[in-house]
Amino acid sequence: MSDHKKPEWFDPNNQEGFASSLKPGVELAADRNKGSTSKFVKKQDASVSVQELKKGILSGDRARLAKGITLIESNAAHHFDFAQELLHSVLPHTGRSIRIGISGVPGAGKSTFIETFGSYLCDRGHKVAVLAVDPSSSINGGSILGDKTRMEELARNPRAFIRPSPSEGTLGGVHRKTRETMLLCEAAGFDVILIETVGVGQSEAIVRSMVDFFMLLVLTGAGDELQGMKKGIMELVDGIVVNKADGDNVPLATRTKSEYNRILHFLQPATKGWAGKAYTCSAITGKGIPELWDVLTDFSDTTKKSGVFQERRRMQAREWLYSLMDHQLKRMFYKNEAIKELLPILENEVMSGNKTVTAAVKQAFQAFMDTLK
Amino acid sequence: MSDHKKPEWFDPNNQEGFASSLKPGVELAADRNKGSTSKFVKKQDASVSVQELKKGILSGDRARLAKGITLIESNAAHHFDFAQELLHSVLPHTGRSIRIGISGVPGAGKSTFIETFGSYLCDRGHKVAVLAVDPSSSINGGSILGDKTRMEELARNPRAFIRPSPSEGTLGGVHRKTRETMLLCEAAGFDVILIETVGVGQSEAIVRSMVDFFMLLVLTGAGDELQGMKKGIMELVDGIVVNKADGDNVPLATRTKSEYNRILHFLQPATKGWAGKAYTCSAITGKGIPELWDVLTDFSDTTKKSGVFQERRRMQAREWLYSLMDHQLKRMFYKNEAIKELLPILENEVMSGNKTVTAAVKQAFQAFMDTLK
Repeated sequence: MSDHKKPEWFDPNNQEGFASSLKPGVELAADRNKGSTSKFVKKQDASVSVQELKKGILSGDRARLAKGITLIESNAAHHFDFAQELLHSVLPHTGRSIRIGISGVPGAGKSTFIETFGSYLCDRGHKVAVLAVDPSSSINGGSILGDKTRMEELARNPRAFIRPSPSEGTLGGVHRKTRETMLLCEAAGFDVILIETVGVGQSEAIVRSMVDFFMLLVLTGAGDELQGMKKGIMELVDGIVVNKADGDNVPLATRTKSEYNRILHFLQPATKGWAGKAYTCSAITGKGIPELWDVLTDFSDTTKKSGVFQERRRMQAREWLYSLMDHQLKRMFYKNEAIKELLPILENEVMSGNKTVTAAVKQAFQAFMDTLK
Repeated sequence: MSDHKKPEWFDPNNQEGFASSLKPGVELAADRNKGSTSKFVKKQDASVSVQELKKGILSGDRARLAKGITLIESNAAHHFDFAQELLHSVLPHTGRSIRIGISGVPGAGKSTFIETFGSYLCDRGHKVAVLAVDPSSSINGGSILGDKTRMEELARNPRAFIRPSPSEGTLGGVHRKTRETMLLCEAAGFDVILIETVGVGQSEAIVRSMVDFFMLLVLTGAGDELQGMKKGIMELVDGIVVNKADGDNVPLATRTKSEYNRILHFLQPATKGWAGKAYTCSAITGKGIPELWDVLTDFSDTTKKSGVFQERRRMQAREWLYSLMDHQLKRMFYKNEAIKELLPILENEVMSGNKTVTAAVKQAFQAFMDTLK
């Protein structure tokens, strides 16, 4: 679909409601400077390029994968169309991974854990992609995974692929981009997807909605930490990992594990037929890491056998469909010129008690429909 | 606005998404049987009747008030228009009350409390309207305030007006009807509005969004009760009333009060500049009831002086505007014939992994816009 055929309310540049700081032309120029990217932004050979890119990604070509992700993350309209075409073409090759969400307060040791855990999996023949959903990235330009040196060993591993959080956009936009990036990684043969997030705002719920297993990384001393923990997060977890169970810290970590197990015991399991538990491990010594992978394998086997795994994936796709649709619906209405003009007036009348809310809503819809005639 | 001028997507009969069991004709016939109601459903003299009804309500005529509320609660299109016209005409006479939300688990003694509290206020010259938001009413046809005998004394009081929860509709519909009923009551001179709710589902948040002061009625023995209490409710309250502080129960009630005070002390106040506290009272002996009214008067004075009272009312009106608008927006889209037909197909394609969510959303909006051309 070319740009001029797009209805004006559907604006992929700004699909998630964020104000792009990049003009499409600037984005294009920047891409040209990167060299080969310019090849597939030309419309005349778009289909060839999608095929090329698809072939590259399916063969596990990391440069092509990175390019595909860049297109997904781009705010330019033609990149959007290209990326959707690419995604559609690789869709039959997606889904064959275990998607693991990893959350935890800053300081819980997420990077070191992912470094050790990811390297262990690579050594066992897995291909590991590490992505991030970072609610703070739109403010400070990316705080997690941004500093690749934090995972030096894993970053150098040819079987691993680390991609920082998309640095621009609202959580909604980051949400879409991370989901679609995950699909491309799966198409490229990555069979373990780790999605890191900081326990802030809505990010855990969003990560929970896109992964199979949701893991919470905690520090020793449950009591204090729970105080500062976001309400409701315990209800989302399939497993809690008490990190830093090494040296003098071992007895405390073991005690913490019991405390969390006691709490989990009282909660409804996040996944039907899977009783979430707490575990200890040390990202430094590697102790507990193989056992943790056994837990994940057990989770995958158990939930695939019961059908819960497949059903959750289906439901996640469905929920994501409605969530994006609702988002787009609000954009269509609230970005309508007539509504943008009328709303402040109606708001004022309603707030000052000169109009009933019901009458105001009716008037707004009348005005909206008039613009569509 | 006559029926045929209404765009088809704006369906006041079903405005809150509930499936009405009443056909407009049936409703009309039923109203005719009630006698005078039939007078104002005839369109030719609608403006006269609005004036008549308005006059009656402003003079405090209870029969006219009841009729106005019946119109607000009606699911028939012409009743809807009539009710909106009526509401608009009395709007300048609304808002001059204190709106008090009263929540508490079943068994906390809400009816007895309202009976005693309401009677006390009537004796002091106030006019008290008692409404209800009952999330269970759509299931069992109204469980709270439905049995008027529970408040026999208050129901007989000429200064009191008791109206059970609208028995039909989703919580969204009940929400609108209760808000608009509250406005009519204010126009009829009721200066204390008590809105009762059962602490179930979303009802407390909805009641909180329409009242000035939110009161939680509790039983003695805070610890046990808190376990079963909905999370987040403590953050909504302006005051906690430990009921049944009579006889042997007094020491326990006093202890319970302290326990709740300790909890409240740790929470952010629900109303800026007002530190919520716990109080004891007995609906049987009446002890503590005058003091409770003093608290409410103090609340009203304090928040009006600081402007918090007025600002909250303005914000409540604004939030209600957006909440109803979003609701209507979803109705417009999801009830569209093209969307109703297309969605199951898209859902299936997305759930089986044959289409990306982004592409599905784009397709749905294209189809929706095509129907509006």
